[in-house]
Amino acid sequence: MVASSQSPAMHRYDAILASGLEVLEKVGAAKFLNTGCETRSQVRINREYMDRLTFETRLIGTRPAQTEISLFGARLSMPVIAAPLSQSLVLDHLSPWDEPYLEQIAGGLADAGTAMSTGMVDEDELGRIVEMGAPVIHFSKPYQDEERIYRELKAAQRYGCIAVGMDIEAVYQVHAPGERSGADYLAHKTPQQLRQYTEASNLPFVVKGVLSSADAAAALNLGAGAVMVSQHGGETIDYAVPVLKVLPEVREALGNNPVLVDTGFMRGSDVAKALALGASAVGVATLLLIACAAAGRAGVGEMMLILRDEVARNLSLMGCASPSAATSARLHLVLGQ
Amino acid sequence: MVASSQSPAMHRYDAILASGLEVLEKVGAAKFLNTGCETRSQVRINREYMDRLTFETRLIGTRPAQTEISLFGARLSMPVIAAPLSQSLVLDHLSPWDEPYLEQIAGGLADAGTAMSTGMVDEDELGRIVEMGAPVIHFSKPYQDEERIYRELKAAQRYGCIAVGMDIEAVYQVHAPGERSGADYLAHKTPQQLRQYTEASNLPFVVKGVLSSADAAAALNLGAGAVMVSQHGGETIDYAVPVLKVLPEVREALGNNPVLVDTGFMRGSDVAKALALGASAVGVATLLLIACAAAGRAGVGEMMLILRDEVARNLSLMGCASPSAATSARLHLVLGQ
Amino acid sequence: MVASSQSPAMHRYDAILASGLEVLEKVGAAKFLNTGCETRSQVRINREYMDRLTFETRLIGTRPAQTEISLFGARLSMPVIAAPLSQSLVLDHLSPWDEPYLEQIAGGLADAGTAMSTGMVDEDELGRIVEMGAPVIHFSKPYQDEERIYRELKAAQRYGCIAVGMDIEAVYQVHAPGERSGADYLAHKTPQQLRQYTEASNLPFVVKGVLSSADAAAALNLGAGAVMVSQHGGETIDYAVPVLKVLPEVREALGNNPVLVDTGFMRGSDVAKALALGASAVGVATLLLIACAAAGRAGVGEMMLILRDEVARNLSLMGCASPSAATSARLHLVLGQ
Amino acid sequence: MVASSQSPAMHRYDAILASGLEVLEKVGAAKFLNTGCETRSQVRINREYMDRLTFETRLIGTRPAQTEISLFGARLSMPVIAAPLSQSLVLDHLSPWDEPYLEQIAGGLADAGTAMSTGMVDEDELGRIVEMGAPVIHFSKPYQDEERIYRELKAAQRYGCIAVGMDIEAVYQVHAPGERSGADYLAHKTPQQLRQYTEASNLPFVVKGVLSSADAAAALNLGAGAVMVSQHGGETIDYAVPVLKVLPEVREALGNNPVLVDTGFMRGSDVAKALALGASAVGVATLLLIACAAAGRAGVGEMMLILRDEVARNLSLMGCASPSAATSARLHLVLGQ
Repeated sequence: MVASSQSPAMHRYDAILASGLEVLEKVGAAKFLNTGCETRSQVRINREYMDRLTFETRLIGTRPAQTEISLFGARLSMPVIAAPLSQSLVLDHLSPWDEPYLEQIAGGLADAGTAMSTGMVDEDELGRIVEMGAPVIHFSKPYQDEERIYRELKAAQRYGCIAVGMDIEAVYQVHAPGERSGADYLAHKTPQQLRQYTEASNLPFVVKGVLSSADAAAALNLGAGAVMVSQHGGETIDYAVPVLKVLPEVREALGNNPVLVDTGFMRGSDVAKALALGASAVGVATLLLIACAAAGRAGVGEMMLILRDEVARNLSLMGCASPSAATSARLHLVLGQ
Repeated sequence: MVASSQSPAMHRYDAILASGLEVLEKVGAAKFLNTGCETRSQVRINREYMDRLTFETRLIGTRPAQTEISLFGARLSMPVIAAPLSQSLVLDHLSPWDEPYLEQIAGGLADAGTAMSTGMVDEDELGRIVEMGAPVIHFSKPYQDEERIYRELKAAQRYGCIAVGMDIEAVYQVHAPGERSGADYLAHKTPQQLRQYTEASNLPFVVKGVLSSADAAAALNLGAGAVMVSQHGGETIDYAVPVLKVLPEVREALGNNPVLVDTGFMRGSDVAKALALGASAVGVATLLLIACAAAGRAGVGEMMLILRDEVARNLSLMGCASPSAATSARLHLVLGQ
Repeated sequence: MVASSQSPAMHRYDAILASGLEVLEKVGAAKFLNTGCETRSQVRINREYMDRLTFETRLIGTRPAQTEISLFGARLSMPVIAAPLSQSLVLDHLSPWDEPYLEQIAGGLADAGTAMSTGMVDEDELGRIVEMGAPVIHFSKPYQDEERIYRELKAAQRYGCIAVGMDIEAVYQVHAPGERSGADYLAHKTPQQLRQYTEASNLPFVVKGVLSSADAAAALNLGAGAVMVSQHGGETIDYAVPVLKVLPEVREALGNNPVLVDTGFMRGSDVAKALALGASAVGVATLLLIACAAAGRAGVGEMMLILRDEVARNLSLMGCASPSAATSARLHLVLGQ
Repeated sequence: MVASSQSPAMHRYDAILASGLEVLEKVGAAKFLNTGCETRSQVRINREYMDRLTFETRLIGTRPAQTEISLFGARLSMPVIAAPLSQSLVLDHLSPWDEPYLEQIAGGLADAGTAMSTGMVDEDELGRIVEMGAPVIHFSKPYQDEERIYRELKAAQRYGCIAVGMDIEAVYQVHAPGERSGADYLAHKTPQQLRQYTEASNLPFVVKGVLSSADAAAALNLGAGAVMVSQHGGETIDYAVPVLKVLPEVREALGNNPVLVDTGFMRGSDVAKALALGASAVGVATLLLIACAAAGRAGVGEMMLILRDEVARNLSLMGCASPSAATSARLHLVLGQ
């Protein structure tokens, strides 16, 4: 891992980001970090809502926070995990790599003590990713090919993934030019089909792409063990409700079951806000791609430890001794831009 | 129609827009797309309000949406139609055309399976437009010359238009330099006169330019079969209330009668918001002029099909199986820009 | 008066503004149009608040509006008058003039059928201004020199002004470099002193600089016949409450007495909003200086007629047949920028 | 002191700021004026909230305000004091100075009749600062080295400081590259430790870094005589609740005890808002560093007198005859940017 003791975390964060973006820019892959299906408005709206949430602090009678959590039976060093990552165009542009891209990211996550999530990867690649040592959540897709779904769920169980899931919104995904849209190979699934997927393995099943309490409750009723609030990077819907706005009602619907959330999380303060609003853990993807482009596995590991320290500092300042102690009572919504 | 299977819709949308704007820019006509009577503020305010509306989604227990609607007895492929288009300065700048501009637009709309609306066109031109095959709604104006109004309404009925109407706000219209202002040849009409127009043909009569529930209710009382919420592209009033803000109370006033709306609609997400707030169909004009400038009839047809797909995707994500199933329960107003 | 029939009002407005600003820029006087005592924030805040007010319309069962009003016994062609104008730095920079600056403005106002207001002018100049034919309201200042105040009030009565007044906030005015600040020659006045000023002539007395219902009520109690809501162009206070925000409570406090308002009014839509919130008439100053710089008396006259037409159009669209019929029931406050 | 009689205060303020920033820019120290631990968002958010507070005025039956206050037994000419200043990187970049930087600032504050605050300074330097004549509040830090804390508190008492305190949030401070982070030498303190610090001298003890009513009440319970609402220039927390948003509830919790506040105050209008929301006095730091860079002791003195005049004018306009008479009844929160 790249040493960070010599220079403060903030400086390193900026340096990794700049270096990673430069690499991605050079190979023409940076544009894939800002996708969208119509106007790309949802990145901006999500960020604006996040930015209007501010913290009050508790420094007296409190103690510095620890960041460990349990997720699907695994002990993680922090409430930040990878959002589902696929073998994608970004990868292609960055090849050749000595060690494949996703494995380096999984390795960095293992080094930092937290979990990986996988999306569209072939079965062998999934196996190699699991071998890197980080707990893995595998997300299948609502393929038209039903058998492929079951094959993936079984493989995930066989490899020792800690959970499986499906990004049910992907059917409406509009890809960048040169990529296939979701409608070409995916299908809208019935509640009956979803129930069968939840029962296809002995692993907890995560329904990803939930943006309402109604879908959250429905997922639970169909046997899901968790949900993931997500806007899929804006690739399925413009003008989606900000994830932090809908998060509290999803938490309410899920009871004590895990609620994951991704889309637009870049700093520890973003993560702390999600925890305060009910998230069990937060997924990051863009940040991992950039860190990996900057310095491979080492870059990913270092970036995650910076995030962990940022989460710890923000929780400490909120007077919340652990991620689960975070509470919306510390947040003030500030109107205006 | 220009083939779109090779490249995703979003990419095509941007390409058509860029190409059409380039053409309009070259002939000095682009400025007519951003008109206004004082400060041109209303385009910005309308857009800001629209952009603050965000969607929550329903993916479980729902099904992909269809976009067909019935409007004034016609079956349309989508809830998007042309807003009234006139033989105008923009047209002049773009001539000569082999086939006149408005006929190409009408043709593209016919290809896409939806309706045309006409404004100031002479009688013969109206006939040729109707012959292109798309259902046509003809909007007369509050001319000082009363006979002209009745002549137009009769002609529309004779040609087989599906509805007629009048943009009653046009009397206050301030045109761009070189064009006549509304006051020069139009007149404010009394309720009695409006009632007579609604009775002058056997077609449903659409009162256009409604921006309050009071006017909506008054229109209904005078025999109108529908209203169109509109800011007339900002040419009559600056700082008009955003169309999506006033739409719900107009819908309330209209009961089951159609409520049309135009002004500022550019994407499927914009249309889906209007449907959720009570619109029966949405009118677009700027988009059609640009698409026609880009590729004539084919450009219009392709643009409308892109819009239809966008509307379908947004309705599907909202879990609304058809335009009429759209509901404001899916919308969250996000404060701030 | 410059002919306007050849070109639409909006175009003329922009042309006069551009031409006047060019003249002022050339002589280094444009900077005096954007003054402020600390950060100049108040111009921006005032405008932002004004811009967030939007209109709903009433076109059915209404009639085109007329704009005439009665003010202090005078019949004016429109509810827009001059805000108090002084012999100032701007004037100096623009000299020499064949006919003095303020007299040209007064002449243009007379041509347009509305009222002039004067601030710091010497007695002879006041006489010449009154002779131009427009009704004049003369505003004295809270001079340390008490006799000067009474001399001015008497002179105004003698010359036939329709009202007098005092801008009581001017004592805190911070002038641009090269000008004297208010504190150098003005003094805070007691209620007893103010009462004596209101009794010093037989003319209605206007207390200017009111930004609270408390001061509005106090002014009335001391014998004032009217108040003027004003931020003095930002020269006395930064971050003043927007004039349109405080206007309704001032109107409430004043009963049927006239409420004038100035600061930041540039278009007929701005004026219509003030009327809807309770203003009897609106003062403009910047606009007159620019119009005069552009084309002297003719420029002022033409600009005022453009404003009158804009006010008429906005009132008509609101369905308010006269300035006094304007009502806040037509306004929607749109949040956000 | 630099003469200001020749030119108005606003002009001088801008001139001092420009000149100071130019000096700091030249030596590469300007960047230390805009610090932050993650995104530097908090400067922007704090300012936006401050800017949305606007004043209504009271000019009738009121009198010009005086600005003197009593603070910890000292009589100050204005409710603006220095926020804690340390021997820092900025200082290093500006050396060599004939007279050390902090002493010049203390001298300028003495000239202007108000108080100095010190942060990390060695004992001898503290003595020399006190000798400059301004009342001094010394803020220690939550050092891991407990003895150092007590040594500092005793020294402050011995030198004749008017109060002592501790910035308890500093433990989470993230410094600029090249500086040590708080965690390297500071420690989170228990309530018992805080109580002992409050009892270690006979001076009032100020708990700095309070951003909630809970911490305010806790500080009071542990024997603190006052609190300071502060975001530590953004160096400990991003997205902190704006100081003016949390100030009213902290005032409520403190009863009649002094509430100080710093972070982002640049003008008299900012200070007047804080006074209206319950602050006893406002701390400025950036402004002092810039003024000192511009013209040393004379620059500091002049800048403080400009601020005093601005505070006086704003209080006068609010109709509040003294800082303690300021009331939130004069403030209007204007939504939007």
